[in-house]
Amino acid sequence: MNFASDNAGPVHPRVISAIIDANEGHVPAYGTDRWTEEAVARIREIFEAPDAAVHLVATGTAANSLALAALARPWDAVFCTEMAHIHEDECNAPEAFTGGAKLLGLPAPQAKLTPEVLRPAMARLGSVHGPQVGPVSITQATEKGTVHSLDEIRALTAVAREFGARVHMDGARFANALVALDCTPAEMTWKAGVDALSFGGTKNGLMGVEAVILFDPAQSWEMELRRKRAAHLFSKGRYLGAQMAAYLTDGLWLEMARSANSALALLVEGLRSLGVTPEWEPDANLVFVRLPRAMHQRLRDAGATYHLWDGPLEEGDPDEPLLCRLVCDWSLGTGAVDRFLAVAAGQPVPAAVPPC
Amino acid sequence: MNFASDNAGPVHPRVISAIIDANEGHVPAYGTDRWTEEAVARIREIFEAPDAAVHLVATGTAANSLALAALARPWDAVFCTEMAHIHEDECNAPEAFTGGAKLLGLPAPQAKLTPEVLRPAMARLGSVHGPQVGPVSITQATEKGTVHSLDEIRALTAVAREFGARVHMDGARFANALVALDCTPAEMTWKAGVDALSFGGTKNGLMGVEAVILFDPAQSWEMELRRKRAAHLFSKGRYLGAQMAAYLTDGLWLEMARSANSALALLVEGLRSLGVTPEWEPDANLVFVRLPRAMHQRLRDAGATYHLWDGPLEEGDPDEPLLCRLVCDWSLGTGAVDRFLAVAAGQPVPAAVPPC
Amino acid sequence: MNFASDNAGPVHPRVISAIIDANEGHVPAYGTDRWTEEAVARIREIFEAPDAAVHLVATGTAANSLALAALARPWDAVFCTEMAHIHEDECNAPEAFTGGAKLLGLPAPQAKLTPEVLRPAMARLGSVHGPQVGPVSITQATEKGTVHSLDEIRALTAVAREFGARVHMDGARFANALVALDCTPAEMTWKAGVDALSFGGTKNGLMGVEAVILFDPAQSWEMELRRKRAAHLFSKGRYLGAQMAAYLTDGLWLEMARSANSALALLVEGLRSLGVTPEWEPDANLVFVRLPRAMHQRLRDAGATYHLWDGPLEEGDPDEPLLCRLVCDWSLGTGAVDRFLAVAAGQPVPAAVPPC
Amino acid sequence: MNFASDNAGPVHPRVISAIIDANEGHVPAYGTDRWTEEAVARIREIFEAPDAAVHLVATGTAANSLALAALARPWDAVFCTEMAHIHEDECNAPEAFTGGAKLLGLPAPQAKLTPEVLRPAMARLGSVHGPQVGPVSITQATEKGTVHSLDEIRALTAVAREFGARVHMDGARFANALVALDCTPAEMTWKAGVDALSFGGTKNGLMGVEAVILFDPAQSWEMELRRKRAAHLFSKGRYLGAQMAAYLTDGLWLEMARSANSALALLVEGLRSLGVTPEWEPDANLVFVRLPRAMHQRLRDAGATYHLWDGPLEEGDPDEPLLCRLVCDWSLGTGAVDRFLAVAAGQPVPAAVPPC
Repeated sequence: MNFASDNAGPVHPRVISAIIDANEGHVPAYGTDRWTEEAVARIREIFEAPDAAVHLVATGTAANSLALAALARPWDAVFCTEMAHIHEDECNAPEAFTGGAKLLGLPAPQAKLTPEVLRPAMARLGSVHGPQVGPVSITQATEKGTVHSLDEIRALTAVAREFGARVHMDGARFANALVALDCTPAEMTWKAGVDALSFGGTKNGLMGVEAVILFDPAQSWEMELRRKRAAHLFSKGRYLGAQMAAYLTDGLWLEMARSANSALALLVEGLRSLGVTPEWEPDANLVFVRLPRAMHQRLRDAGATYHLWDGPLEEGDPDEPLLCRLVCDWSLGTGAVDRFLAVAAGQPVPAAVPPC
Repeated sequence: MNFASDNAGPVHPRVISAIIDANEGHVPAYGTDRWTEEAVARIREIFEAPDAAVHLVATGTAANSLALAALARPWDAVFCTEMAHIHEDECNAPEAFTGGAKLLGLPAPQAKLTPEVLRPAMARLGSVHGPQVGPVSITQATEKGTVHSLDEIRALTAVAREFGARVHMDGARFANALVALDCTPAEMTWKAGVDALSFGGTKNGLMGVEAVILFDPAQSWEMELRRKRAAHLFSKGRYLGAQMAAYLTDGLWLEMARSANSALALLVEGLRSLGVTPEWEPDANLVFVRLPRAMHQRLRDAGATYHLWDGPLEEGDPDEPLLCRLVCDWSLGTGAVDRFLAVAAGQPVPAAVPPC
Repeated sequence: MNFASDNAGPVHPRVISAIIDANEGHVPAYGTDRWTEEAVARIREIFEAPDAAVHLVATGTAANSLALAALARPWDAVFCTEMAHIHEDECNAPEAFTGGAKLLGLPAPQAKLTPEVLRPAMARLGSVHGPQVGPVSITQATEKGTVHSLDEIRALTAVAREFGARVHMDGARFANALVALDCTPAEMTWKAGVDALSFGGTKNGLMGVEAVILFDPAQSWEMELRRKRAAHLFSKGRYLGAQMAAYLTDGLWLEMARSANSALALLVEGLRSLGVTPEWEPDANLVFVRLPRAMHQRLRDAGATYHLWDGPLEEGDPDEPLLCRLVCDWSLGTGAVDRFLAVAAGQPVPAAVPPC
Repeated sequence: MNFASDNAGPVHPRVISAIIDANEGHVPAYGTDRWTEEAVARIREIFEAPDAAVHLVATGTAANSLALAALARPWDAVFCTEMAHIHEDECNAPEAFTGGAKLLGLPAPQAKLTPEVLRPAMARLGSVHGPQVGPVSITQATEKGTVHSLDEIRALTAVAREFGARVHMDGARFANALVALDCTPAEMTWKAGVDALSFGGTKNGLMGVEAVILFDPAQSWEMELRRKRAAHLFSKGRYLGAQMAAYLTDGLWLEMARSANSALALLVEGLRSLGVTPEWEPDANLVFVRLPRAMHQRLRDAGATYHLWDGPLEEGDPDEPLLCRLVCDWSLGTGAVDRFLAVAAGQPVPAAVPPC
């Protein structure tokens, strides 16, 4: 009954199998192996981007920071939401990788940038004294569980283009957004004006693999050097390649994302029936809700794990609503959701489902 | 018959098993899992350093660069050999992580710093105009396959202490050096004056795990932040922890290092009998030798893989000696060595050994 | 009739004289001359801080960025207002000097941080994932012309202390604030909890000299190195020292600040009599006001120079109020103010005052 | 009798006059004043480079570091001599400004790079693992007082071109080299293949002004931003512009350089007559010589000031030769040289010359 994060869950068995299969004999190092080549080929195929520069790394922060470093110069501003992972949760890694660019966290009611907020923020820069206009970064799905529509993405990239700026997409939960929109990877990225993508895998069933995708390959060799200099070029690259290749085989990545999104939808439906309304519109695999302190205590006592934003849990009005985040990963399954809802409702807990 | 690098070989099956065992259910993320805790505990135990700060990362460059960043300020010089991996083979990652420290590559006949070279290089710094005295970095085993004796390490750390400087050890091949010296990890590090260690696992049978060990834990939280900011904090830390814990269980790490060193010793013995003398004294699992062009061609034709330093191979005097590096990894085995030597000698190749 | 900036005016003749006096023969370089020593001694005396570390530099951005670099680590957040010069007008220099710290520009109605805004912004940081709690930066006088009272400063430094954070004061217009508050330099800084000061001189009649003052001298040598590494250690330091020493002799600095503040007060009084209300409370030597487009046009036609925030000037409703900034430097004098007000009022312009 | 450095001497009176002349009324800030425009125009004219990007800064380290930052990416190597000022005497400022490029100090018998040393150093780079090929930096005149011939410069820039690399010239003593070669500024720079120049003024009679000249103006705006971000954009730019404009008026800069070089030539001639041979061939305004300890003591007792490389002066064999550097600045004059030589020779010191 673990709703803490989609990085708390296990790796999919087919990914483990791929790692085992790759563990045979001696192979070329540093990403020149055939598994990496296969992973890159699949990404290009899936994205309908045969020339894209694709570089595998092992963490989402690495993917984001390297992508931003390719788009932003040290004297630039990076435009993002005030709750963007790159701004809030990466311990200044984007600043480190870009050589000191300034992240501007803009207000975003649905955790999404809007043209109305973005345009004036970009328009006021330009003199030598301030930061310069740099890239726009969009998180899809967002940190609050919402998903930009294709129109919303296009509207933002259009604003960026007005100022000659490029657009990065933080796709740590790319698959979850994609199945939510039911569109193609190309439609959600370069066809909508996205220049660089952090293509996440770790939160969706891999051990630790993400891809930095630059749809314009002009900076491909530069990215190779940036990755090495950031200490993210793996000598035994085959294990990253094998994971990513398996992920993209037979739609495994979409299957896992659908599993996570479905569990979340079930959870939200159940919570609504208890009178709980999401803080942000839950389109993917996570939701923020306010639950009464007493409900939190029941859930904790029953072994539910998740992040509580408010506090303290231990003392205060039992009816006071406290904000929490609930995340469903690919492996969670509906059983855990049923148990959670039963506990939340104060009902008997389904006994047959083992806690995970 | 792959002597290209110890990163070309596979992961040990017991390490794979450990990964599979760890792949069960939901667990806390970001290195707060029990596998990571076990790995850290084992490292502290093996190093007789119960308070040491231990942080797992996935690449040797990350370990080196983070360790150096903890020891060097941006205005410092880092003293190393002219062939040090940190100077030659990390695409300026140490400069990036330290915020711009200057690596001074000093002459080193046996690929080892000597007090005679180190002391005057440190003594001439100090004014505000130049770089300041920063840490000394020793590679053990060295990039050329030699190993510092304990006395040699102590002599270097004593020079560092004269100038108030701390000492880093690049232990990408730590286990290979350790079994060569037949001493304890503590003797080869903190008891000899080493402050920070890059404790390698990847070149010795892991998929991609190294540990940054600071024997003085004062900078432990700082290292936590540095690791995150460098995008090297893994969300699914359990898989790193599981690897490292397995590595240190039942002496697996030493067993693998001995296997690699033995293969190399056999190779060197065979080459000597062919009249080939190593360029540097081979104490661990790699050797640099000059072989006649014709011998190289025979080896290549027979499928041997390794790095040629000189060239071109294709044309020139068949007797001209060309420098190459030969590395034995834990999995290579004596069969590959026998085949290599047979081909080198122009003898019939043992048929039963499958090429690897 | 130049109200563009206090950096548009000339250097005070007594400062020029000091430069000429210092231009005799050979003297030691790099700030080891007697003029620099005198300047440092005077600063320490005036601030009642006999041990303070004092380093002269030539630009305000250098002073701010070096001071912040001494207080903030690369993974820290720096707390400032959303209109802080360090955030808006230094082209990411603070990010560059700190190695990538994140500046958080907080809402500030009177261009001043408030405990109510500052405390929660500091309280929400702390996990390894986000930026860490770093220094608070206060501008005194502020970029909008307001001045913090001593109580306001103390309240902010008290909040910083709650979180173990240090406090920087951007004193580009330090003298203007000081004469406005009629307190001592010590009262406005270390006695109120300020740890590091950018002590401005350039905007108040010097050619280009500022001092970085660290009231705790522990980082004095580090600052020496930071300054050199930032290319701000002047070889011919005597000319900086001579300027600063003259500035602090016989109260010249306070005299110039009073001249500037008086001119501004006269200007504000006159504008109020025309029905114009300042946007922020003008306590020092600059004011932001909204004037009707037609008035701006009259002023421009009459040769008045200043920065217009809104626009365009050329076309639109003549009555539409457009925001501008008016700054009085030490040399402006009341004549220019009288002319400005006469033009603004549509009255005959005093003829005897030559435009400057 | 001060031979310590050419930064120990005063500013030329005509430069002081220019500063005074510029100190009138209000003028536009940040280098948009007419003095700066005039300085830039003169530089372009003198260099026969009407499109060159010219940016004034106040220190030689700033000029060098900004120029290198324009030419080198963070993952590059910069090729220079082992005694280059950028490598030895700038406290890692070039590393800081470039974002962590690696300076490779190469052997240089006459303090000059040679094609024989440079070519193989460049040729061995290129793989993703090491630093990449970046710019070559030449110091003219060198740190040891030698001067590259035009042929020598051309030979080095030709090697750089073989590798697609650009060339920087550290011209802290540009004028001294120019009058030594008796060629044009264009011949010594862009016509010989130099891409970026640090054009020194401070060591040759200015208060503190250097120009960064990029002969290809493509990076002009980038340099504007780099300068601001490095805190080297002066608000009161007129005082830098006025100095540089005066420097380049009526050949003042060449006159001062000739004065310095002549004094040095006289000094060297006198030392040779005492049997002292320069360590490096003195072509400009400084020389390194070994003088007996007793001679040093006589000179010190007589008030001579200069840098002693060896030591200690106080005790040891009176005949032991100790290395020192002697520098003549524009203001030194032949009287000081005569006195120095008389003291060195143990002769009566010319009485009429006042010490300077």
